[in-house]
Amino acid sequence: MGRKLEKEHMAPIAKTPSCIGIVGLGLIGGSLGLDLQSLGYQVKGLTNRPHNVSRATARGLAQEVSSDQQILQNCDLIILALPLNKLLKPNQKLIKALPKSAVITDVGSIKGPVLKVWNELHPKFVGGHPMAGTSANGVEAGEKGLFKNQPWVATPDLHTDPQALKMVNELAIQLGSSWLTTTADTHDQAVALISHLPVMVSAALLRSVGEEANQEIRELAVKLASSGFADTTRVGGGNPDLGTAMATFNTSAILRGLSSYRSSLEKIETAIIKEDWYELQKELQRTQALRPNFLNH
Amino acid sequence: MGRKLEKEHMAPIAKTPSCIGIVGLGLIGGSLGLDLQSLGYQVKGLTNRPHNVSRATARGLAQEVSSDQQILQNCDLIILALPLNKLLKPNQKLIKALPKSAVITDVGSIKGPVLKVWNELHPKFVGGHPMAGTSANGVEAGEKGLFKNQPWVATPDLHTDPQALKMVNELAIQLGSSWLTTTADTHDQAVALISHLPVMVSAALLRSVGEEANQEIRELAVKLASSGFADTTRVGGGNPDLGTAMATFNTSAILRGLSSYRSSLEKIETAIIKEDWYELQKELQRTQALRPNFLNH
Repeated sequence: MGRKLEKEHMAPIAKTPSCIGIVGLGLIGGSLGLDLQSLGYQVKGLTNRPHNVSRATARGLAQEVSSDQQILQNCDLIILALPLNKLLKPNQKLIKALPKSAVITDVGSIKGPVLKVWNELHPKFVGGHPMAGTSANGVEAGEKGLFKNQPWVATPDLHTDPQALKMVNELAIQLGSSWLTTTADTHDQAVALISHLPVMVSAALLRSVGEEANQEIRELAVKLASSGFADTTRVGGGNPDLGTAMATFNTSAILRGLSSYRSSLEKIETAIIKEDWYELQKELQRTQALRPNFLNH
Repeated sequence: MGRKLEKEHMAPIAKTPSCIGIVGLGLIGGSLGLDLQSLGYQVKGLTNRPHNVSRATARGLAQEVSSDQQILQNCDLIILALPLNKLLKPNQKLIKALPKSAVITDVGSIKGPVLKVWNELHPKFVGGHPMAGTSANGVEAGEKGLFKNQPWVATPDLHTDPQALKMVNELAIQLGSSWLTTTADTHDQAVALISHLPVMVSAALLRSVGEEANQEIRELAVKLASSGFADTTRVGGGNPDLGTAMATFNTSAILRGLSSYRSSLEKIETAIIKEDWYELQKELQRTQALRPNFLNH
C-alpha cells in the first residue's frame, strides 16, 4: 500500500467538485448528502422511487432531489450509493446520464466485481468502500457524521485516473474518514474475513442452538441465553438479503475464509476430543491475545 | 419441569436461615454477600487467601470474614461460591467444617459433575447456578443487584432434600432472580449451547482471521474490523482458563454442540459452493427468525 500512497501524494491537487450527484438516498447516500451539504457542496440526489422524492427533500438529503436521471447532468462528481445488485447491473438510463467528464465513484462493499463492470462503463471510475454502517436502511436512515473516523477504502487499479482518485480521496478526508488504498482482491478477502465470514459463522450458531432437536434443552437454552450469546449471534441474525449478496458477489473469498475457519475450529474440537486441556488452553490464550488487535482503532 | 415445580409448591415453608456462610468472595460470592446483608441476613465469609480478609471486610462483603473454616460452624445455609476446579476437588478442611444440619448449595456453571461429588459429601446439598456474571473477578468484583432478573437454575435429583431446595429457592427469589428447576443433564446441555459452544465458535473465528497467512490481507482485516467483528469475537477472546474449564467439565455436551454446529455450518457452506443463493437466503431467513427468541426475556 505504501507505494500507492506515495503516488497519490505526487498527484496534482484535485479539482473541487462544483456539484456532487448522489445516486440512491438510503443510509449511505442520505448520510453523504447531509454531510456534503454541511461542507458547503451543492448536492443533487437521484432516487429511483418517485414517492421517495418528497421525503428525501423534506429530510434535506440534497438541495435538489429527483427521480429523473437528468438531474445528474451538471455534476462533476457522482457517487453511486446503490445496493450491490443494482450497482452491478446498472440500468441503461443511468449509464447514459453520467457525464463522461465527471468522476464516478461507488460505495459497494465488494470491489472486484464492481471494477469489472464499471471500468468498462466509465473512464473516470474510482472504486470505493466507506466502511460506515448501521442496521438502518431506506430514505429515513441517512444521518450526519456517519463516516467520521471510519475507514474509507479505495481500490485503484491500472484503469484508475489519478486525478479522479485524488478527488474522491479529498472528499473522504473532508468527511472525517481514514483513507486507505489497496487492491480490489485484498479488499474483498479482508472484508470476507471480518464481515462476511462472521455472518456465516454466527448464523450457523443460531441454527444449531435455535433448532436443537431436544425440546427441553432448546427451551432452557432460550431462557438462559444472555449477552454472550446475543453478541455472538448478532450478525448471523441480520438481513438475509445482505448476507446472500455478500456470498453471491464475494463467493471465492468467503469460501476461502470458511475453509480456514473450519480448520481453526477443528483444532479446538480435536483438543477437546483428545481431552488435551493444555492444548485447548494454549489455543484460547492465542485467541485472547489476538482480539485486542482488532479493537485498537 | 412442571411436575417438579408442583412438588416444590407442596413442600413445607422453608426455615429462614439465621446465618448464611459464603465460601469464596469473588464476583458471585461477594455480590451475594452484599445483597444478602441488604436483605437483613447475617453473613459470614470464608476466603482461602488470608490477604483478602481485610479487603473483603473493608468492602463489607460479609459482617465477618475469615480464612479459618471454623467461621462456618453456626451457619444453617452455606453457599459454595468457588471456581469449578475447587468446587469439584474441595479441600478436606472445608468438608469437615460444613455442619451436617446446614443446607449446602453452590453456584457452579456445570451441574452434573458437581452433583456427583457433592451428593456423596453432604446430605443436604442443592445444586444451583445463578446465571449472573460480568467479566470481573476477585475480591474487588462483587457488586449489588447482580442477580436481579437473572435466571437461577436449580438441578434437584433423587438425593435432594425438598426443604433444602425450598430454602435456596426462597433466597433466590428474594435476590430478584427468576427461579428455574431442571435436571443436571438438561442444564449442562443448555449451557453448552448458549455459553460454551459460542466460546469455541468465536475463538475459531479470531484464530482464522488473526492468523490469516497473507500479511496484506491480515493487516487490512485488522484495520477494517468493526463492531460486527468485535461482537462476534467477544466471548472467544475471553478468559482462557474459564474456556478450558468449560470444556474439561462439560466435555460431552460441548462435543455434541460442536457436532451439531459443524453440520449447520456445512449447510451454509454447501449452499455457497453450489451457488444455490435461494437455499442460502432461506437459511439466513431462518436464522434471522430464530434470534428474537433469545432476546425476549
